[in-house]
Amino acid sequence: MQGIKFTSGASLEADAENVLRAITPTLDPNRHKGQAGKIAVIGGCREYTGAPYFAAISALKIGADLSHVFCTKDAAAVIKSYSPELIVHPVLEESYGVRDDEKRIISGKVLAEVAKWMERFDCLVIGPGLGRDPFLLDCVSKIIKLARQSNVPIVIDGDGLFLVTNSLDLISGYPLAVLTPNVNEYKRLVQKVLSCEVNDEEAHEQLLSLAKRIGGVTMLRKGKSDFISDGETVKSVSIYGSPRRCGGQGDILSGSVAVFLSWARHAIRDGDSSISSKNPAMLGSIAGSALMRKAASLAFDNKKRSTLTTDIIEYLGRSLEDICPVR
Amino acid sequence: MQGIKFTSGASLEADAENVLRAITPTLDPNRHKGQAGKIAVIGGCREYTGAPYFAAISALKIGADLSHVFCTKDAAAVIKSYSPELIVHPVLEESYGVRDDEKRIISGKVLAEVAKWMERFDCLVIGPGLGRDPFLLDCVSKIIKLARQSNVPIVIDGDGLFLVTNSLDLISGYPLAVLTPNVNEYKRLVQKVLSCEVNDEEAHEQLLSLAKRIGGVTMLRKGKSDFISDGETVKSVSIYGSPRRCGGQGDILSGSVAVFLSWARHAIRDGDSSISSKNPAMLGSIAGSALMRKAASLAFDNKKRSTLTTDIIEYLGRSLEDICPVR
Repeated sequence: MQGIKFTSGASLEADAENVLRAITPTLDPNRHKGQAGKIAVIGGCREYTGAPYFAAISALKIGADLSHVFCTKDAAAVIKSYSPELIVHPVLEESYGVRDDEKRIISGKVLAEVAKWMERFDCLVIGPGLGRDPFLLDCVSKIIKLARQSNVPIVIDGDGLFLVTNSLDLISGYPLAVLTPNVNEYKRLVQKVLSCEVNDEEAHEQLLSLAKRIGGVTMLRKGKSDFISDGETVKSVSIYGSPRRCGGQGDILSGSVAVFLSWARHAIRDGDSSISSKNPAMLGSIAGSALMRKAASLAFDNKKRSTLTTDIIEYLGRSLEDICPVR
Repeated sequence: MQGIKFTSGASLEADAENVLRAITPTLDPNRHKGQAGKIAVIGGCREYTGAPYFAAISALKIGADLSHVFCTKDAAAVIKSYSPELIVHPVLEESYGVRDDEKRIISGKVLAEVAKWMERFDCLVIGPGLGRDPFLLDCVSKIIKLARQSNVPIVIDGDGLFLVTNSLDLISGYPLAVLTPNVNEYKRLVQKVLSCEVNDEEAHEQLLSLAKRIGGVTMLRKGKSDFISDGETVKSVSIYGSPRRCGGQGDILSGSVAVFLSWARHAIRDGDSSISSKNPAMLGSIAGSALMRKAASLAFDNKKRSTLTTDIIEYLGRSLEDICPVR
């Protein structure tokens, strides 16, 4: 991302630590289970099991109360075995296990399994370890439509971005959607939505246009600095960070954004006056980006080249505590 | 739970540390395996595997000698993988795996598998991660009847409470049953048993009435403070605690109460004169509540918002040692 030009320089940088402090709820002994957040990750197939685990466990380590994963049967036993803290539903199906004449019935069953939980979730993360099986992605399209109907926020990453880049209608005009593309996923989105190539000379304007053209969804463009826009404003998060690029860090980010987006909605609902932006998707993206970068930086200080995603997850709690200590 | 009114204020608080000291057995090299407690958890299905693990491992970490889990085949391999310390029996069945014409035979087989172990157990925990499959719950009803016939104490939590709230006869009049409802489960019990809503102005009387009406079972109502009643007296446990409400803490409590209830029965049988109450279910509930709260408090001091159920379990041993050190 070196060489990216943004027109309004210094003012671009988000005051991420203040955002984190404004939206993170105080811990109150009068509250009960679930009130600090219930997150669900849609992902995990025959090939991928680590990604949905990383997203789901990150949500808990930040402070959510419950974290679910909806994945295929193959993936479920493995994801469960990573941690007894997660609730893992073996409900998704891939084409290889489904005959053509069964597809409609099975698709209906998959949707019913997710639907009975939907109203309880504060945010969905769609994409970590999802894979690209056509039947599975078709079911996930229906899950996205259901989430929109229920007004449940969604964070979309990985193969979820592959899906929505090819079916923009799924998220177009939904302000509670956050897309978290890396360099290649961003390139495909720009090509598809703006019918041009990524232009780092006018990165600011291009990100704004992209978010606006998809109808006010929030874009979190990951890179050396993260850039975030909802089509109205652009903010950057450049603090901390690590030079290590091991796989799985994007999954931590997606789980983190999901928790902070939920918390931001609560803070806004509660009338918190210290929050300048009123878009919870912007606030959640800024907070998630900053926390992830701080945890990565602490893990790298300790483990250097050997830093893995699990090491970073272990620093999420301390990173949040450093910025907004429990009172 | 703020605003709950109890009529007899200060005297309500249990002397929980003295209860813990009175019922925890001295460690005697002359004893052999099993004498410090053999616990069995009935729970674990296709969807849930963490909850029965938390209950069963907590029992061991407190000091029980053997901890069994009876669950479905799907759940068994996963629960085994969490820890080699547990004995996991893959014997339960859910409807999806059983044809209608097989149900009677399979139900009989499930019961026989549990029955051959029953006399060896000091306490059952029924409910963690049980799910709500009708066939499975029907088998569990029969297991509860069997436990009563064998005079084996039972702690009922989670989906076990869903089952007994709809079939009160299962536990009505059984003094060796402890029910551990959270805020929602308590609400359903009050509605079903007392045909009214939860009244926090007369919480004391209502809890007493509820326990009395279910025939002297012990109720452990979880909240900011825990309130415990067997229909004769009410006690509270307000010490320590943590403001974190991550899922799974109730499972630790159920496993803990099971161990302490078993120990209390032994202490009473041995004629320990320092125990004021003679109801082991009350003593076990007070001790379990206090230990769980202390462990949660220590874990929270260390991990803050990032505290998960596994972190709390790691403090069970130290919490008990702080209160009644091994002599």
